[in-house]
Amino acid sequence: MTEVTRLLAQYLVASRPEDVPAEVRREATRSFLNWLGCAVGGSAHPTLDIALTALRPFVGAAQATVLGRPDRLDIFHAALLNGISSHVFDFDDTHLKTIIHPAGPVASAILALAEHRPVSGRDFLHAFILGVETECRIGNAVYPAHYDIGWHITGTAGVFGAAAAAGKLLGLDEQKMVWALGIAGTQSSGFREMFGTMCKSFHPGRAAQNGLTAAFLAKEGFTSSNRVLEAPRGFAHVMSAERDFTEITENLGKSFEIALNTYKPFACGIVIHPTIDGCVQVRNENNVKAEDITAIALRVHPLVLELTGKKTPQTGLEGKFSVYHSAAVAIIHGRAGEEEYSDAVVRDPRVIALRDKVTAEPDTSVHEDAAHLRVTLTSGKVIEKHVAHAIGSLKRPMSEADLEAKFHHLADPVTGKSQAAKLIKLAREIEALPDIGEVARASAVKQREAVAG
Amino acid sequence: MTEVTRLLAQYLVASRPEDVPAEVRREATRSFLNWLGCAVGGSAHPTLDIALTALRPFVGAAQATVLGRPDRLDIFHAALLNGISSHVFDFDDTHLKTIIHPAGPVASAILALAEHRPVSGRDFLHAFILGVETECRIGNAVYPAHYDIGWHITGTAGVFGAAAAAGKLLGLDEQKMVWALGIAGTQSSGFREMFGTMCKSFHPGRAAQNGLTAAFLAKEGFTSSNRVLEAPRGFAHVMSAERDFTEITENLGKSFEIALNTYKPFACGIVIHPTIDGCVQVRNENNVKAEDITAIALRVHPLVLELTGKKTPQTGLEGKFSVYHSAAVAIIHGRAGEEEYSDAVVRDPRVIALRDKVTAEPDTSVHEDAAHLRVTLTSGKVIEKHVAHAIGSLKRPMSEADLEAKFHHLADPVTGKSQAAKLIKLAREIEALPDIGEVARASAVKQREAVAG
Repeated sequence: MTEVTRLLAQYLVASRPEDVPAEVRREATRSFLNWLGCAVGGSAHPTLDIALTALRPFVGAAQATVLGRPDRLDIFHAALLNGISSHVFDFDDTHLKTIIHPAGPVASAILALAEHRPVSGRDFLHAFILGVETECRIGNAVYPAHYDIGWHITGTAGVFGAAAAAGKLLGLDEQKMVWALGIAGTQSSGFREMFGTMCKSFHPGRAAQNGLTAAFLAKEGFTSSNRVLEAPRGFAHVMSAERDFTEITENLGKSFEIALNTYKPFACGIVIHPTIDGCVQVRNENNVKAEDITAIALRVHPLVLELTGKKTPQTGLEGKFSVYHSAAVAIIHGRAGEEEYSDAVVRDPRVIALRDKVTAEPDTSVHEDAAHLRVTLTSGKVIEKHVAHAIGSLKRPMSEADLEAKFHHLADPVTGKSQAAKLIKLAREIEALPDIGEVARASAVKQREAVAG
Repeated sequence: MTEVTRLLAQYLVASRPEDVPAEVRREATRSFLNWLGCAVGGSAHPTLDIALTALRPFVGAAQATVLGRPDRLDIFHAALLNGISSHVFDFDDTHLKTIIHPAGPVASAILALAEHRPVSGRDFLHAFILGVETECRIGNAVYPAHYDIGWHITGTAGVFGAAAAAGKLLGLDEQKMVWALGIAGTQSSGFREMFGTMCKSFHPGRAAQNGLTAAFLAKEGFTSSNRVLEAPRGFAHVMSAERDFTEITENLGKSFEIALNTYKPFACGIVIHPTIDGCVQVRNENNVKAEDITAIALRVHPLVLELTGKKTPQTGLEGKFSVYHSAAVAIIHGRAGEEEYSDAVVRDPRVIALRDKVTAEPDTSVHEDAAHLRVTLTSGKVIEKHVAHAIGSLKRPMSEADLEAKFHHLADPVTGKSQAAKLIKLAREIEALPDIGEVARASAVKQREAVAG
């Protein structure tokens, strides 16, 4: 296996928009819509304010929009900021085979690029698909060994995706695409140790920025190794204990990883989703209120308690790591969006009271994607609910209406409802847009504070 | 060992210029002088032209000098470019314990910073010493296992050094210094696979830029892990198979790694230096010319042939990996600077003729720092020369005159001789300079082409 990087580059250079099946492009459009909503919604987060305050004295010309904000920055910094905002709520998309959040690094890079060098929505979507293909195939080649070591795979693989997509839009030839992947790869970075800090969302942002930079450097002839992926001192050997290069080289142009993308319906780790889904169903089907309940007994995959077993969370962020809190808000609020993981909701006495009635039992016979609930009411009645596949999974994908509701939930507080509706419309029509930059500009707000508070 | 990162940050925050012994500051001044000459000399390399062409549309305000050039860029990009130029000839400094090239990532970051936020030469030199301390201690903790995996340690450790030095000049408190190290560490990257391509010098450049960015982000409260160095998913575990944290935490403020810095007298890999040194001595002591020689028989450490055993190099770059070519130019030209590794010199028939008379025998009894030469003349006379420690090693450091000659050799073609002499004078007086930015500005040229061709 001597030509992994070159084979990938050949594919990227040769692929044409019409080579991609319609159902793949449809899923790509959904991915873009979901990413856009997350980025606009995340744009009011303090992480963005801090980054902008720190970096503003050093940015270049006003070339590209920071989504959902009044700021325009050079394209490198716009890519960084949009990558951060799209992941800051941990509410974006998931490629379940690798737990890569694919859209962030790729879309953030090329939407900024497209405001500087206008491209059609069709070409943009094609480059987006190729970028996601690149990062997810590279992820497939090294997952899970690479992730187990401690690498945040969305950053480490994402930088390749950003370079590939940007390189495609810049029209790089094969050799320059090889170099772009090389320059990107030698910047691959990001530790899982950073989870729970602002650096987590910094990773996809920096991956977008660094991949975009790599493509521009390669375009001018900046050289790198021809074998960044497969060389003994290249990515797959240095950053992973195991690797399978056929994941990168086989079926190129025949299978598409973006077709396997999923979208989070709830603003927390995916392992809690079956429980939340079940609680929302119990609530809605039985008109159950918190006060009616004496006990909620869960049977869940053991990983749920390992990752989200926090009994008494004190902050919004800790709430995301509590299956107990999540079950309680699902019953009380009927959802688990970003608001349900605010400090205020975590400290709400009504939520705490119900949370304390939730018990969870690990059960290896329960699939990761499933949950079993047993809700006992004050009346003595017992409601059982089995969730075989959580909403948002590949088996039960978010509907178009679900995605739009999520978009509004995220974007409305930033842009207002009608501007959010316009953004949804533009994203849905992406393949007909003569200039994709229109989407970015349509997300801008006059003053952040005026709407987002 | 739970508080490695915090202990380091505490030291960095508490250290004062007067805590550093005079002989350490003297070596730091030599390191700075050597770095400056390399950066000015490297500034005319095509790698810089390509990077500037690619990045210029996206740079910010003209805040800092690209050394040796007419360009002024925002400080992040100036740090990147100066880091590239200082390493592009592979002629800079070496911390022999880790083979880190220490000055590049650190000086490139803070000299750019100092043009934006003026500081005295004394404070600059102190921050420089602390930055080098940080990167070399972190290097000591993971070398050689980290390097053996395939990481280019100048990039991977350098980013911490840049953040530490910049954080010191920004006056970060302990918590923010911890975050700066964290934000830097989660960008740690750079594969040895890139050696021989433009990405090699990109590594210290990007390390400078990323470390500088980390310090500015931390200053505004951008959070990261508190334990980037020691956490199970942090730097030393993720990026190395072995680690010794006492290398980071012990004797802080008592020993100084910059005191162990060395400077290359020759523009090639350090393993060939004893041979070149010996050839130059034979030439000068005996007035030997190429035509007088029938054979040069070398006995060298086995690593010399492993790394630089190229018998018939075709390009300047390949010449750097040929002990045969290096011996020939040392006899013919009496030195082995960047010019002796040009394509023209490698293809010079006189050099080729002598090169073909050189033989080299690996000998495990010869130390890495030593070489044995046996030169046979047409007259039948045999000259033997044993080099116990090559010039430029810790045992036989470059003299002040050697360093100045090297500076002129590098800088004169770019700035002219008198401007180079002024730069040397400024660097020597560094601790008395009210504004270190003066050094950077004094390196600027009106038009690159006018002098550098």
